[in-house]
Amino acid sequence: MTDIENKIPTKRLVRTLQGEVLQRPPIWLMRQAGRYLPEYRELRRRAPTFLDFCYSPSLAVEATLQPLRRYPLDAAIIFSDILVIPDAMGRKVGFEEGEGPRLEPLGDRAAVAALRPEHITTRLGPVYEALERVRASLEPSTSLIGFAGAPWTIATYMILGKGGPSKAEARLWAYQNQEAFHALLDILSQAISTHLIAQIDAGADAVQIFDSWADDLPASFFQRAVIDPTKKIVAAVRAARPQALIIGFPRGASARASDYAHETGISGVGLDTGADIARVREKLDPKIATQGNLDPQLMIIGGDMLLKETDRLLAAAAGTPHIFNLGHGITPQADPANVEMLVAHVQGAS
Amino acid sequence: MTDIENKIPTKRLVRTLQGEVLQRPPIWLMRQAGRYLPEYRELRRRAPTFLDFCYSPSLAVEATLQPLRRYPLDAAIIFSDILVIPDAMGRKVGFEEGEGPRLEPLGDRAAVAALRPEHITTRLGPVYEALERVRASLEPSTSLIGFAGAPWTIATYMILGKGGPSKAEARLWAYQNQEAFHALLDILSQAISTHLIAQIDAGADAVQIFDSWADDLPASFFQRAVIDPTKKIVAAVRAARPQALIIGFPRGASARASDYAHETGISGVGLDTGADIARVREKLDPKIATQGNLDPQLMIIGGDMLLKETDRLLAAAAGTPHIFNLGHGITPQADPANVEMLVAHVQGAS
Repeated sequence: MTDIENKIPTKRLVRTLQGEVLQRPPIWLMRQAGRYLPEYRELRRRAPTFLDFCYSPSLAVEATLQPLRRYPLDAAIIFSDILVIPDAMGRKVGFEEGEGPRLEPLGDRAAVAALRPEHITTRLGPVYEALERVRASLEPSTSLIGFAGAPWTIATYMILGKGGPSKAEARLWAYQNQEAFHALLDILSQAISTHLIAQIDAGADAVQIFDSWADDLPASFFQRAVIDPTKKIVAAVRAARPQALIIGFPRGASARASDYAHETGISGVGLDTGADIARVREKLDPKIATQGNLDPQLMIIGGDMLLKETDRLLAAAAGTPHIFNLGHGITPQADPANVEMLVAHVQGAS
Repeated sequence: MTDIENKIPTKRLVRTLQGEVLQRPPIWLMRQAGRYLPEYRELRRRAPTFLDFCYSPSLAVEATLQPLRRYPLDAAIIFSDILVIPDAMGRKVGFEEGEGPRLEPLGDRAAVAALRPEHITTRLGPVYEALERVRASLEPSTSLIGFAGAPWTIATYMILGKGGPSKAEARLWAYQNQEAFHALLDILSQAISTHLIAQIDAGADAVQIFDSWADDLPASFFQRAVIDPTKKIVAAVRAARPQALIIGFPRGASARASDYAHETGISGVGLDTGADIARVREKLDPKIATQGNLDPQLMIIGGDMLLKETDRLLAAAAGTPHIFNLGHGITPQADPANVEMLVAHVQGAS
């Protein structure tokens, strides 16, 4: 560890996203707050629906801070959901236990025109309030991350009312309703930009754009539905807040990660479990950070396998700006003791 | 078109897999026989279960030839299923309408030891008989393709009894039962090699190994569960039949396609819809063929979009050994008229 790292308690996540190479990478974990924690399951009971929970600043603050009380993570991520965007714009969003989210499927161009992106900042006020309150409770060296879903990923849920396998059908809808689809991407890009700027203003040091369904897209469609709208969001956020640090996470598209990063102008690129970080780095601007990508299943397994794979990942990312994370969110079956071991190992490895 | 191409009616698919660059690429389509064809839906009624259908040589021959009667495709692929391998080794396999296959989940090491790879050639005799009969009916310029599932993909179905989202849980099982998992991969590699050799002997000009669940795998696991067993199969098949032409299709792993191709020794690599063929080609041995990867949804859409994307793909693969195909199987919603237009366009484009 250098003298500077010892003496100045700056935020590791921020420095890494600015392109600095730290001897010990920052670590946070996708879904670090959530169902694998008994205290979260207990807390969750205090709101009738999942969106009620997300929109309660006190519950969202508490859920955000729970993992930080257990582990000395380098960042907190605000507890919220990618589907607050369609909800705020007037679509009906529900979460069925064990089934994933269900939305009222979008019909046609008229339904797109009826969306209300101007409602974002008022409707999502509780999210910004939660960010402000979390910011006030965090150590000065701990970063705070805001986030939003990416236009394509939110669109897949909105078009057919659900995620997962239906995303191929959402692409079919996009082909069949090209004008409506591009209008939808534009409205979403605008709403997402607004939401990210408001989160930065509320205290987020960095924001992440989750493109969870970016896999299996044809090259031309990936350009139109993933890269172009993300580039627009990055430009809009930077026009308003020039220093904004933005992580893009095009899950399942690691073969296109460098093009995605360079064209959109993001500060860091999230890599999924299947990505080969050394291969991605070969083509990536050395100032752009990588983030990822330990197998989340190792949070269930633990033991030597966890430590060995962690060391392998640390070695693969050594000498580059890297944020240690999983390749996907922690699953409900994860053992909190394994998370503790991982964080201690990464933070003690320097 | 060169003089040689005009005068000698050799098999385009074979020549391409031997590394030759043809002015007009061969074309066949994954699931070119199947539910989008009314004559297939009619034929399917003649057997009570899907496996009964696969094991009836006359029905399998007819299903294989149906698309060739409609379109002048450059190859036929035998009508069968990747799950005939576990079925032949003694596991119970069922196909529920609209639900995908269901197997009796594998328990432990004892269940792995009870598998009977030596039953492959006798139990799968009807597949080889169908290949022989198809071979006899094909034009001399039409290639015949045999196939098998890859060890990892078949293992995912066997371990938990179903495919799709459960593959992450299959990886968890692999971590928790490492010895049984590697024994399972070994047995599957042996059974698959046997099945591929028998298909070559029955008249297949080339064989394809479908690794449908190769996406989202950590680098070290991809090596152990995808590359290593596939390499073993390629070596075993080539030891028996040195000229064997083998296509490997690691779906969802295009970021690793060149490593996969070079390490396993395959003749051609199948690329899924999400792959960027130009990017893959940058790192690929120029003698190794690519295969793919038009968006299957375009078989529903048709029209100018289909032609434009086809031209884009033809241009991206020009000057390299390439087999035109989709990035995934034709869906039941595909319009046979669009398939006809695609085949004519590719074959007339030279």
